[in-house]
Amino acid sequence: MMKTQKGENPTSKTKKPLILVTNDDGVDARGLRALADVAREFGRVVVVAPSSAQSGKSHAITFTSPLRLRRIYKEKDFEIYKANNTPVDAMKLAMNALLKDQKIDLLISGINHGSNSSSSVFYSGTMAAAIEGCLNRIPSIGFSLASYKFDASFDAAKIVARKIIKETMANKLPLHICLNVNIPNVSIDEIKGYRITRQSLNHWQECLDERIDPIGNPYYWLTGELVELDKKRDTDEWALKNNYVSINPVHIDLTAHDYMKTMKTWNFKK
Amino acid sequence: MMKTQKGENPTSKTKKPLILVTNDDGVDARGLRALADVAREFGRVVVVAPSSAQSGKSHAITFTSPLRLRRIYKEKDFEIYKANNTPVDAMKLAMNALLKDQKIDLLISGINHGSNSSSSVFYSGTMAAAIEGCLNRIPSIGFSLASYKFDASFDAAKIVARKIIKETMANKLPLHICLNVNIPNVSIDEIKGYRITRQSLNHWQECLDERIDPIGNPYYWLTGELVELDKKRDTDEWALKNNYVSINPVHIDLTAHDYMKTMKTWNFKK
Repeated sequence: MMKTQKGENPTSKTKKPLILVTNDDGVDARGLRALADVAREFGRVVVVAPSSAQSGKSHAITFTSPLRLRRIYKEKDFEIYKANNTPVDAMKLAMNALLKDQKIDLLISGINHGSNSSSSVFYSGTMAAAIEGCLNRIPSIGFSLASYKFDASFDAAKIVARKIIKETMANKLPLHICLNVNIPNVSIDEIKGYRITRQSLNHWQECLDERIDPIGNPYYWLTGELVELDKKRDTDEWALKNNYVSINPVHIDLTAHDYMKTMKTWNFKK
Repeated sequence: MMKTQKGENPTSKTKKPLILVTNDDGVDARGLRALADVAREFGRVVVVAPSSAQSGKSHAITFTSPLRLRRIYKEKDFEIYKANNTPVDAMKLAMNALLKDQKIDLLISGINHGSNSSSSVFYSGTMAAAIEGCLNRIPSIGFSLASYKFDASFDAAKIVARKIIKETMANKLPLHICLNVNIPNVSIDEIKGYRITRQSLNHWQECLDERIDPIGNPYYWLTGELVELDKKRDTDEWALKNNYVSINPVHIDLTAHDYMKTMKTWNFKK
């Protein structure tokens, strides 16, 4: 199972912080193990992760079929559970059943295999789990490594995650704000530093790969690439491309507050 | 099939506006028919809706299995397609395959059977489809009726949708902003008016209904209720409860801009 980190425990309180760990790549993913390893340096760790890969499942929840939760590993201060279906289902099971009467001090999600910058925040199951934590007033962070390669190294990402968890626990996040952390796929020496970024306002341009099945009917594979219209230097995309760790504070209020005033001039008299 | 509205066409240009209609309750839902009926008063209508109910599927997309798209109805200026799987999959098929070379003037989603106020915006497939349109720079609106009753009347909601579509086409929405419209479940005479609202910062408190299956293993049904901590009068929840139509402008930038400055004081030196 997962290796125990031998680093010193940064908390000196008698009661260890409770850290909930999840991801969207599924309970067997290497990125989850990397993140759980780091989490164990900071407190008691409960991993609740989807039993299968759930990339692109966003904030989907399941209420038309039953949810399941099963413990697959236990040792002192470290347990692993697998859950169906989606990452947010897993978090709902964790927060409202398994850990119902316990205070969760931190929720961390990842380390995702692939970046979640720009508009990917809408599709990402990794970030949906963090946002779900944030909605439930738990300090929450999503971590993603900008590599889709099967054998990507999580070594640098673990060092980054450790630093960001430490800073988050020290500074505390305000209500309604969580973090979307994207880590460039380079060695720790090549990482130039940390940037507080905004979400770049780009979107995915889909290319639907049309094929014909053996019966003669068309079907489509969904593929796409990011259309980069927002090229400024304060974005998550710019940071990643230039080998900086991107830390994007994400809030759960989608209201376009500035536009509310303009809209009040529209004619909605009955 | 759907009835043709006989109202006058408000556009006098030679080329009719192209309106894309979708939902998350599936292609057979009454709310979809109601919205398509209204849309036909404004232009050429293409409905692309999920073949099955997709409530709670949020912004989920499918890239590990193929997508399908099939036309099930066609007459002059009105076509209906069904698509798998999720509402956002359907929108990607519509925007990037079916209507690839055409300018979509408006994307409307709904009329959802059930409200999508407050944090429901994160779980809703109805709003995810509208947000997907917005990401692709198409003026987009999600409509929801605050009733889960099977026989709910969409009569008042149609009148509301007509007014809001008309105002949206007249005033135009800026880039990166779409609308989340929630309609109280009362007659048109009982609706008190229209309010420009903000998303109330509430969250769902889940109650996981634990049961034991015939084999002896536990399973859970996901149910919940909204925890109303944000009780101010400028919110979508307040408007709905007081029989106003709630019009919440939603933006696609999740960045907590105000908090970026504070975060820059955190210690991220290498």
